[in-house]
Amino acid sequence: MDLQQYLRRQAERINAELDRLVPPENAPPETIHKAMRYSLFAGGKRIRPVLALAASHAVQPGCPGIEAAACSLELIHTYSLIHDDLPALDNDDLRRGRPTCHKVFGEAMAILAGDALLTAAFQVLAGLACGDGTKVRIIAELSSASGTVGGMIGGQVHDLEGEGRKPDAELLDRIHRAKTGALLRASVRIGALYAGATGEQLAAFSKYGAHIGLAFQIVDDVLDVEQSSEALGKTAGKDAAQQKITFPAVYGLDASKVMAARELDLALGALAGFGEEATWLRGIAALIVRRTA
Amino acid sequence: MDLQQYLRRQAERINAELDRLVPPENAPPETIHKAMRYSLFAGGKRIRPVLALAASHAVQPGCPGIEAAACSLELIHTYSLIHDDLPALDNDDLRRGRPTCHKVFGEAMAILAGDALLTAAFQVLAGLACGDGTKVRIIAELSSASGTVGGMIGGQVHDLEGEGRKPDAELLDRIHRAKTGALLRASVRIGALYAGATGEQLAAFSKYGAHIGLAFQIVDDVLDVEQSSEALGKTAGKDAAQQKITFPAVYGLDASKVMAARELDLALGALAGFGEEATWLRGIAALIVRRTA
Repeated sequence: MDLQQYLRRQAERINAELDRLVPPENAPPETIHKAMRYSLFAGGKRIRPVLALAASHAVQPGCPGIEAAACSLELIHTYSLIHDDLPALDNDDLRRGRPTCHKVFGEAMAILAGDALLTAAFQVLAGLACGDGTKVRIIAELSSASGTVGGMIGGQVHDLEGEGRKPDAELLDRIHRAKTGALLRASVRIGALYAGATGEQLAAFSKYGAHIGLAFQIVDDVLDVEQSSEALGKTAGKDAAQQKITFPAVYGLDASKVMAARELDLALGALAGFGEEATWLRGIAALIVRRTA
Repeated sequence: MDLQQYLRRQAERINAELDRLVPPENAPPETIHKAMRYSLFAGGKRIRPVLALAASHAVQPGCPGIEAAACSLELIHTYSLIHDDLPALDNDDLRRGRPTCHKVFGEAMAILAGDALLTAAFQVLAGLACGDGTKVRIIAELSSASGTVGGMIGGQVHDLEGEGRKPDAELLDRIHRAKTGALLRASVRIGALYAGATGEQLAAFSKYGAHIGLAFQIVDDVLDVEQSSEALGKTAGKDAAQQKITFPAVYGLDASKVMAARELDLALGALAGFGEEATWLRGIAALIVRRTA
């Protein structure tokens, strides 16, 4: 199986599980289930849940029920996209190549659909097939990575408040470690926790996760400058328009690309103690840096 | 100790614990912690957490760490108020007698502050002092009571979609069992679960919770008609203005009051198997029906 095949199969596993976990469109109240599913099944790459699957595979291949743990990450990610796109925040009309949730369902329903996906993530984790102690560790991990102190929401606030400010390396680092980095790192850790990783393994995955998280954001910033909206499936060039603090704005395009490559090296280095069981994690890291959308 | 004294003391316990659980205003990013605390410490009555404390007392007086479990309910309740007040939803300027969160901090920060309080509720539960099995049951309870299927968000959607429709007893029942009822019922159940209630005790509390939940909403609807905005600390008369489906709209004011009294009787009946240890639960039920704000 090559990496593309692997990724396609894992995305299918995740899509099937998401479909099972989220109430059907005809379950009342129908509108909100339609809105949740509209954004959830918009063809995302499922990078966070796939990272969780790949990390669990590296610890213990074939963990029954790991898909649900992985899906919690996509539920959180999708809620954050819906709320981020709202007129009061990024005011974006296009996401994953389609009109954003509030454009289709209205702002009220988009706010509630985001709230519902966030709530569903924890409901899913409470129902995992693993032991209670593992569930609690995973719930602590996800809530902290999504929260205000060093987590996703904190990063969004720093990002909002940074708009229009002088580009600043320290603020940039703080924004991105939190805004995208925390959830990507949590994806790897949650997969590993579910599979029963040792403390040493978990430390290695945390390092790997932090480096690919940073690489992911650098590449995202570069693509926002270099790619078209069509290629990205979302509005390109928005960072500059909104005077966001980005890696290209602080370091320039070329230096940003060098930094992304360095983060990839560090991520691969963190996996040095693993053998073939970490093949997919290595492949995903490389793909994150080399992607074009 | 009389009921008023009891309620004051429990509210103080809750306020102290909330202060401990939520990052201080000067923790970065400061703005969101300020926004969260602005809405959290606006002088709410803490009815949900106090119900959890009173239920835990009825099972096992003096449960160490129960305050944190109780606070999770106030975190969820406050997030729902912040999002409900947004221009896209109820568009309200006044809450608990003060300008609403988005009026003070802007819409973007109000959306994120709501998200952050919702996330914090589950972070708090993952850190409870009880056993992992109890934590998981409480997390399942809270997420389900806050969700789309029979939970708070589902009730809000039914409510939004009911605006302007012909008043209808069945829809009214569905809205309120979910919108306010589910979280009030969960408050009692979470307190009882934390204290290690038996199945039989839990069933009695669930009944009690469902009846006071309905009573609470009937009285809320009546007060919206009869009271001034000053007395309520929020905009009065909004239900009629927004053509909401309410108890007075469906049954008339007098019949609504009779129904509230009947729900109180049923709630007290559900506690028939308890002795003095349920005194506070009985007092709170009576207060819910007799309150004037």
